[in-house]
Amino acid sequence: MPSHLIILAAGAGTRMQSDLPKVLHRVGGAPLFAHALNAAEGLGAERRILVAGHGAERVRAVAAEIDPDLHIVLQTEQLGTAHAVAQAREALAGATGDVFILYGDTPFIRPETLRAMADARAEGAAVVVLGFEAADPGRYGRLKVVDGTLEAIIEHKDASDEDRAITLCNSGVICADAEQIFDLIDAVGNDNASKEYYLTDIVAHARARGLETAAVTCPESETMGINTRAELARAEAFFQARKRAEALETGVTLTAPDTVFFAHDTHLGRDAVVEPHVVFGPGVTVESGAQIRAFSHLEGCHVGADAVVGPYARLRPGTELGNGAKIGNFVETKNAEIGEGAKVNHLSYIGDAHVGEAANIGAGTITCNYDGVFKHRTHIGARAFIGSDTMLVAPVTIGNDAMTGSGSVITADVPDGALALARARQENREGFARKLMARLRAAKQKRTN
Amino acid sequence: MPSHLIILAAGAGTRMQSDLPKVLHRVGGAPLFAHALNAAEGLGAERRILVAGHGAERVRAVAAEIDPDLHIVLQTEQLGTAHAVAQAREALAGATGDVFILYGDTPFIRPETLRAMADARAEGAAVVVLGFEAADPGRYGRLKVVDGTLEAIIEHKDASDEDRAITLCNSGVICADAEQIFDLIDAVGNDNASKEYYLTDIVAHARARGLETAAVTCPESETMGINTRAELARAEAFFQARKRAEALETGVTLTAPDTVFFAHDTHLGRDAVVEPHVVFGPGVTVESGAQIRAFSHLEGCHVGADAVVGPYARLRPGTELGNGAKIGNFVETKNAEIGEGAKVNHLSYIGDAHVGEAANIGAGTITCNYDGVFKHRTHIGARAFIGSDTMLVAPVTIGNDAMTGSGSVITADVPDGALALARARQENREGFARKLMARLRAAKQKRTN
Amino acid sequence: MPSHLIILAAGAGTRMQSDLPKVLHRVGGAPLFAHALNAAEGLGAERRILVAGHGAERVRAVAAEIDPDLHIVLQTEQLGTAHAVAQAREALAGATGDVFILYGDTPFIRPETLRAMADARAEGAAVVVLGFEAADPGRYGRLKVVDGTLEAIIEHKDASDEDRAITLCNSGVICADAEQIFDLIDAVGNDNASKEYYLTDIVAHARARGLETAAVTCPESETMGINTRAELARAEAFFQARKRAEALETGVTLTAPDTVFFAHDTHLGRDAVVEPHVVFGPGVTVESGAQIRAFSHLEGCHVGADAVVGPYARLRPGTELGNGAKIGNFVETKNAEIGEGAKVNHLSYIGDAHVGEAANIGAGTITCNYDGVFKHRTHIGARAFIGSDTMLVAPVTIGNDAMTGSGSVITADVPDGALALARARQENREGFARKLMARLRAAKQKRTN
Repeated sequence: MPSHLIILAAGAGTRMQSDLPKVLHRVGGAPLFAHALNAAEGLGAERRILVAGHGAERVRAVAAEIDPDLHIVLQTEQLGTAHAVAQAREALAGATGDVFILYGDTPFIRPETLRAMADARAEGAAVVVLGFEAADPGRYGRLKVVDGTLEAIIEHKDASDEDRAITLCNSGVICADAEQIFDLIDAVGNDNASKEYYLTDIVAHARARGLETAAVTCPESETMGINTRAELARAEAFFQARKRAEALETGVTLTAPDTVFFAHDTHLGRDAVVEPHVVFGPGVTVESGAQIRAFSHLEGCHVGADAVVGPYARLRPGTELGNGAKIGNFVETKNAEIGEGAKVNHLSYIGDAHVGEAANIGAGTITCNYDGVFKHRTHIGARAFIGSDTMLVAPVTIGNDAMTGSGSVITADVPDGALALARARQENREGFARKLMARLRAAKQKRTN
Repeated sequence: MPSHLIILAAGAGTRMQSDLPKVLHRVGGAPLFAHALNAAEGLGAERRILVAGHGAERVRAVAAEIDPDLHIVLQTEQLGTAHAVAQAREALAGATGDVFILYGDTPFIRPETLRAMADARAEGAAVVVLGFEAADPGRYGRLKVVDGTLEAIIEHKDASDEDRAITLCNSGVICADAEQIFDLIDAVGNDNASKEYYLTDIVAHARARGLETAAVTCPESETMGINTRAELARAEAFFQARKRAEALETGVTLTAPDTVFFAHDTHLGRDAVVEPHVVFGPGVTVESGAQIRAFSHLEGCHVGADAVVGPYARLRPGTELGNGAKIGNFVETKNAEIGEGAKVNHLSYIGDAHVGEAANIGAGTITCNYDGVFKHRTHIGARAFIGSDTMLVAPVTIGNDAMTGSGSVITADVPDGALALARARQENREGFARKLMARLRAAKQKRTN
Repeated sequence: MPSHLIILAAGAGTRMQSDLPKVLHRVGGAPLFAHALNAAEGLGAERRILVAGHGAERVRAVAAEIDPDLHIVLQTEQLGTAHAVAQAREALAGATGDVFILYGDTPFIRPETLRAMADARAEGAAVVVLGFEAADPGRYGRLKVVDGTLEAIIEHKDASDEDRAITLCNSGVICADAEQIFDLIDAVGNDNASKEYYLTDIVAHARARGLETAAVTCPESETMGINTRAELARAEAFFQARKRAEALETGVTLTAPDTVFFAHDTHLGRDAVVEPHVVFGPGVTVESGAQIRAFSHLEGCHVGADAVVGPYARLRPGTELGNGAKIGNFVETKNAEIGEGAKVNHLSYIGDAHVGEAANIGAGTITCNYDGVFKHRTHIGARAFIGSDTMLVAPVTIGNDAMTGSGSVITADVPDGALALARARQENREGFARKLMARLRAAKQKRTN
């Protein structure tokens, strides 16, 4: 059965106290709405629609990078969830199968949960509602399920004492028949205190028409929504706890899990070791046996097997670290292939560069890749030995087995096996330092008198 | 009504196991006694007196920096709290209004609490005692309050079973009539096991004279005292939790609040984003929309709107970062104005410097500001382009739109729009590297044989 | 009475999901089995035997570094704990006194606990079993102790309801008479579901022979075993909590204890201050009054009294930091003595070096200690002033009171009091920068058109 996805993401998120639309705030390095997209990925949703409202243009721009096929529709007035879904009517014209309605600020629904909802649909339900067993049901709407059938969603204010004893609550997530959902929505009215059209009401209308309705249950944690910065921080903590547990389960050593931060797509191989205080931005894969030492920061990079990173290494996007390579302290790499067994051990910037296998890059080496307007590439050959404090003024090529003298500014290519030097001759001025210091100290003495 | 402040800070703090006087240990980057001063700041206390004893000279030196008008009086013998307060008699000669007595090792009393005490005084009480509802009253003295009147403070050893059922306990914090407090203290005796004069006893004496006495209640957490390093660490944690919650409430994103450390005076604007593992020392203000990336360390600096700091940026005191400016990894700044949109992206030290707007400072740039005795300033013009590994030997001025060649040591001023170079010519010695390596490897072979 | 030690370390540790033998995984920077060795250190065990199996060669190699006298015996098949101990028979031939049997994956048994077991042996017990009061006894074997005598170890499956009410459980740790243990082991059979020989069974055999058997109790936390990465992380957390509490108790300030990571042998002096986010690798001693600032990383080094380290300082093995010395941000040291009051404040690499007292090492200084094959030493004299970005091409000596000019590559020794310069003359090309930028921007314009 084909499936489709609607993400509701129009809300102002006033309590976030932010100029950024709520669904663009991030958890695990990804905007909130992207988590809903990820959860639905396994469903292979054909049409994917995001209903935007507040800050729609910023949402559109970010969405375009994440899922170019995500269709953005506008809800110019916020008249309730049913009204929000109704904005997707045209985008779903002629669609058949399942329509999933998720929320842009509810990032933890798991793919398994959505599959369970699809299964309930396949078994005949026209509308499937996702419920959760609430530790404290409070003012949540209750799902009244009898013999496997969702008989009603009872709002708290309308609930009898008996109803209020129900602990299965309404998450708002719905999966419905694509061919019937908009008819059902048309039946929804706004005769309530807020004058809003509630999506939840389609259950009653479905039942009135004799359609089957069902509920699926998930843990309460999956339905965690985000309305404030504190809730955003709590959601991030929940996300991190999940990722850390996953990493440990797959045979990764995390010396101090609570100090390691993952992105939504971080992948670590078996027997990788991550020391305390490490941050993974999006797009990082670390192969088996690699060590990520303390205080390292990685984004958009690939770390080969048995490579050693850090402490204090910063791998920026486009870094490809070969097997057994080593990036040491206070080293930044960007758009750089570092060959197998190559070493960049100290205080260097390697950007827009290729470093050959087994090359040794001395402390303080910098690829001068930017001329103020353009970026240029540096090519360093296999087994090259770059002396400390070498400036590699790109574009430039250092040959295989070549060397550069410490402190050299290299502006021209260096042939294979050659030594390049650019260095002034050392001159020692006897006694000069002693005299200079004496003079400076005397001057200071004079000033303080 | 005028108000005055006495901070008791004479104790040895033996359990801290420290050579440092207890009240000089720090929470949120400020010495403990300074928190009491801060709490009282809103009262506009006219005379502020700190009673010092152990390590009085060190306390005096630190106090002079924090509040030059803070009057230090000495308690040479530690004979109890009433005796300590009595040392302030001369400093408060002729004073009228309220006298607040706070403790140098109790940093969490809130201004609201002190205002409530002042209100109780204004309503007629000669002595107002601060109580707290103790989760476990244990051996604390109990406040017996009947119909809003503090009838007695009952020491644990003197308490009946009925008294011990009271959970409102004595914090020791007192606000009393400036014109009567020393008379009341004169009445206090030391006929007890410790032979100490207890300030608490003034309540009984006040009541004996027919004066009104009242109690004000605060949460137990405000009265947290510090006697050991573990309690100091716990106090720091409490302080940090309070500051993190405040930041979240005002619209700041803290990705991982537990890994971010604030100082007592850290100020972050709305929509500022702080990544994991960031430390704020005293004196930092971050404007709206700025990003503080992971592993950054800031002290005594101002970060303009939408500026980006880090990862691994260290902003030291006197850094003024313009709007949209960027300080990247492994960069240290100190006493430096960095102009709007200027960039210092990698591995640099910018100290005692002005960097013009939109200037680009290459990787490895160092302002050589110290000649061994004096510090000198560097001035870099707007839109200047400083090549990688440029040494700027201060005092020196780089003009607007000027450039420096990578690897140059700049000792003389560079005019607007000029390019400065100080560079040896590159020379490639063909085959030399290969030969050198072969020779070195042969030597190694020989050694290992 | 002489004592001996057997550490059982042959297990596969399948649930670790690792190619590394389980006992080589680390807590507090030391392999798990080393913790058992450390616990037994105070006993002065004469013969120390480790029973290896899975990954025995890797275990042997690591063990050789930690305790060269540790005797490794092989258990080629894993037939149970009694069988494992039997592999030590030859190594213990003729031994008298106590034999302690510890586990390579149980790192938290304390020396006091082992001493208590030795005491019980001294009082006449042939076999002493270590028990713990289990919060949830579950399926643990129960220790039936009557009038101070261990009457039996009852396996869960054989336990009556009455037995199951016992909460004193079997840790597996045993201390037995060296002259009798192997006889007792000979009596152990493998007539059980797993067909394994259980060490625990020696208790029944000892009693059958009329020998005394006793139990000693320790807190459950001491018996924590490690079977998964999650348990390894939990053990690390437990270890760190213990070390942090110890540091606080001895008068160390830890601003944020949860963010500071210690090794098994970290030693911090009274009034040392450790800021947030600090990692101590093995072999670090910090003297009284020293400050370890945020984001620092120390391994194998000694920090003198009142020295200041960091933020962002990395002290590698062989660093000896003199009293009052200062290592600042983005500085790496290795095999380096840094003299009293010397300063290396910024962006430097000091390796294989001696830095004299009160020397000042400028920003960006690098000791070029590696020529591609050999490492060489740098000697910097007292009060020397090394200019920023000086390359010290080792072997090289800088005299006392000598200076180097900023940006110099120093390849020859510098006499005492001399100034060494190696610098190209600066040349300003008027208007050149402006023209160059104009040309580059025009080129860009052309490309984008």
